Amino acid sequence: MNNCAIGVFDSGLGGLTCVKELNRILPNENIVYFGDTARVPYGTRSRETILEYAEQDINFIKKHSAKLIIAACGTVSSVLGADKKAAGNVPFTGVLLPAAQRACSLTKNGRIGVIGTPATINSGAYGKAIRRIRPDISVTGNACPLFVPLVEYGFTDRNDPITKLAAEKYLAPIKSAGVDVLILGCTHYPIIKETIADYMGENVTLISPSSEAAKYALSLLTENNMLSERSGKGENIYYTSDSIELFEESAHAFLGDTIGGEVHKVGIDELISAAQDPA
Amino acid sequence: MNNCAIGVFDSGLGGLTCVKELNRILPNENIVYFGDTARVPYGTRSRETILEYAEQDINFIKKHSAKLIIAACGTVSSVLGADKKAAGNVPFTGVLLPAAQRACSLTKNGRIGVIGTPATINSGAYGKAIRRIRPDISVTGNACPLFVPLVEYGFTDRNDPITKLAAEKYLAPIKSAGVDVLILGCTHYPIIKETIADYMGENVTLISPSSEAAKYALSLLTENNMLSERSGKGENIYYTSDSIELFEESAHAFLGDTIGGEVHKVGIDELISAAQDPA
Repeated sequence: MNNCAIGVFDSGLGGLTCVKELNRILPNENIVYFGDTARVPYGTRSRETILEYAEQDINFIKKHSAKLIIAACGTVSSVLGADKKAAGNVPFTGVLLPAAQRACSLTKNGRIGVIGTPATINSGAYGKAIRRIRPDISVTGNACPLFVPLVEYGFTDRNDPITKLAAEKYLAPIKSAGVDVLILGCTHYPIIKETIADYMGENVTLISPSSEAAKYALSLLTENNMLSERSGKGENIYYTSDSIELFEESAHAFLGDTIGGEVHKVGIDELISAAQDPA
Repeated sequence: MNNCAIGVFDSGLGGLTCVKELNRILPNENIVYFGDTARVPYGTRSRETILEYAEQDINFIKKHSAKLIIAACGTVSSVLGADKKAAGNVPFTGVLLPAAQRACSLTKNGRIGVIGTPATINSGAYGKAIRRIRPDISVTGNACPLFVPLVEYGFTDRNDPITKLAAEKYLAPIKSAGVDVLILGCTHYPIIKETIADYMGENVTLISPSSEAAKYALSLLTENNMLSERSGKGENIYYTSDSIELFEESAHAFLGDTIGGEVHKVGIDELISAAQDPA
């Protein structure tokens, strides 16, 4: 069991930022990643469709005997909320609680900002999670639907004029609220964190939920004696619902260097079957 | 047969601009529309996934006994190319040929521009179609991946600074080429045609492929004695793969006023079954 993989999934490629951090802090672990690139993005879809896709993704990952499943997707994490049983008897976490805990531990003035997809912000999940930890904290959220396509289509230079304008538009109400911590509630956003930081100023700490989720995985596996007994480096294996070529072309922006593992295609019919006949 | 519906499909809601035009010029016809809102956008996916989705969409529409099927989606039309048999024995058209024909009839200087999704531009389909009609014409294309999210997330004001910047970036090489006709090769683009026109200048004629496809439908039904014998107004019926609420919320931007018909949800499993067991 200890040598089973950590399962990670996302609507697309953003969750690879979590894989990168897991590889850094848990180098002996195997990782199974699924990116639903044939149906990305999730964050502008309805709650019912997001829940349906999340169930399929979780059941697909379960079929690979994961010892822990991480929803490295801000949208899925927020729509599922604090549901620790979303994967049945397999330990499960989204990025929501680890990021909320970290934000609460870092804020000095009690004001936290959250940005994310429309589904994440409309769910109000970050506000609920933060107030459950510290009821005195005020939370200001704003949806930034254009950030995902800006990242996906390469508008990622720190001084890109379009991304700067979008950041100003979306972040103005967050800045006005005087937050000292900002949760980047979508796994795409850390790719443009410099542009966000430039606008928010140096007194605002940015939190990357996928990094926090990776650190949470380290704690959970350590506390429950579930760490791999492998002495060598673990392996990454990737599944993608659109073409392998498209995955390989775009994965580098999130992983930083080589993807270091095999990529396989999974059909949407297989995802639907996985949910109809769970592991 | 004559009173059967015209079937129209798109990756999402952009194809509703074709429905609007059909309602205007063919008011007695019934329309069956399918928008694949649970999997939109298509234009940034791989060719293999687009072909798979298109086959499912066509077979779903065929199950509604359509007398003519229109792919009111620039991406699907381009990836299918000039394939008039894409729907088997049911007459079929994409937006590609009607738009290419119109562009060729309008250009005076023999230079035509085409903008579209990455899949549309990478397919080279417009260039091939135009050169088959008039081999002397030069075609300059550019992919504008940010235009679809800009339209979907409401950056549609004529003077929106973000959309203006994106238009400048994407259209600069088209303008430099000195075109006098520009094909708006994605059904979302007519929504921001004023911003595009402002940048291109008054000497460039913009072509909306979904309007051209509607006009082509009128000619084809007339020539083949396939017009409806209905004396009253036809009915629209809509199918959507994401929630009905999401469809109804967003459809107005494309249809202009009331959507004037019932909306039904269709599951992705039904789409997959439709392709496995065609009508």
